[in-house]
Amino acid sequence: MRESYHENLNSVVDDLVTMTEAVQTAVRMSTKALLEADLATAEAVISADAALDVQHDDLEARCFSLLARQSPVAGELRTIVAAMRMVADLARMGDLAAHVAKISRLRYPEKAVPEGLVPNFTLMARVAEEMVQTAGRALRERNAHDAAKLADSDEEMDELRKGQFRVLMSKDWPYSVESAVDVALLGRYYERIADHAVIMAGRVIYVVTGTHPEGDNWTTA
Amino acid sequence: MRESYHENLNSVVDDLVTMTEAVQTAVRMSTKALLEADLATAEAVISADAALDVQHDDLEARCFSLLARQSPVAGELRTIVAAMRMVADLARMGDLAAHVAKISRLRYPEKAVPEGLVPNFTLMARVAEEMVQTAGRALRERNAHDAAKLADSDEEMDELRKGQFRVLMSKDWPYSVESAVDVALLGRYYERIADHAVIMAGRVIYVVTGTHPEGDNWTTA
Repeated sequence: MRESYHENLNSVVDDLVTMTEAVQTAVRMSTKALLEADLATAEAVISADAALDVQHDDLEARCFSLLARQSPVAGELRTIVAAMRMVADLARMGDLAAHVAKISRLRYPEKAVPEGLVPNFTLMARVAEEMVQTAGRALRERNAHDAAKLADSDEEMDELRKGQFRVLMSKDWPYSVESAVDVALLGRYYERIADHAVIMAGRVIYVVTGTHPEGDNWTTA
Repeated sequence: MRESYHENLNSVVDDLVTMTEAVQTAVRMSTKALLEADLATAEAVISADAALDVQHDDLEARCFSLLARQSPVAGELRTIVAAMRMVADLARMGDLAAHVAKISRLRYPEKAVPEGLVPNFTLMARVAEEMVQTAGRALRERNAHDAAKLADSDEEMDELRKGQFRVLMSKDWPYSVESAVDVALLGRYYERIADHAVIMAGRVIYVVTGTHPEGDNWTTA
């Protein structure tokens, strides 16, 4: 019984790692859809989001069942509670990638991101994707030290977002109002993907050390 | 011991109801700050958000402690798990109200919402605030029927958001690009407050009936 319990708990964490990889793929593909106005890839991200939601429901039910049947305490309870939250973070990151894909689809065959902001979005998307990857690796390796690095990446993301706003708010914005609205929302989606990666990393730190990291970045779901 | 356990569980739910009222106040005040360019009220919402985050941490710790010490099962386990998530929804709604207040502060002494969109935002804010109120009342009264009504309010919110986009995307947007960006983000914040109210209501349904409501609206955190 105990052995199967530990197997179940480990398989929940393994499946969270796999789900993180799927989310990373969703972020990468949604960026391709966005920057290349690639409709097929946009559709693929949107379809894959439904599969992420199914994984969310499955993992959540397994966590609940572990709580109900095993009355875990200490580190195991911490792991299960953190897992229930990480699965929600991951489902949300998948939704946000799908939002990016939906804007790409809406503007097809045009590109949603105007030429002058392509470098900014290329960087932003790369940082977001790397943050998801780092959070997944930190979880797989139970590595609080790697997880803690995400606070730096989040600052990089904030700077990129500020740079975006400087262009948006300049007096001589050379593109349409529609483009400005798209950029504002797309930037918000990447920023939120990054936020959730940081929050997820904070939960890894909590699982490994038993303590929540200090500071605003880690806590706001 | 059992009696004190039930007292603790009931006090968690009571405090969630109180926190919902504080969030409702934050939404109302942030709207006042926004539509009247009222700097003092904007500052008050931003300060109050820190208090909501403290309540979040306190309630989360109490839920964890109930799980660790009492090994709850069935309906009680459901309630505690749902409470841990509702407190995260509420903290997030508070953050979103603070985001609205921050945009008001940034544009002060100007108003962030252009004249032509004041009726739309007035309605949107009213719907959002009522949804938070309904979610809180459904929780207080353990009323799944009232909670289920929030799906209708959410459709109303979606329609208001679509109306906003029609104005934003029309060829003759008469305001600045800056205003368009503000409207896009502000609308997004109210929409997300409404989403979290629906998700919270879905958790009330789950606590009362033991079943998650069907459909996309209820599940996307």
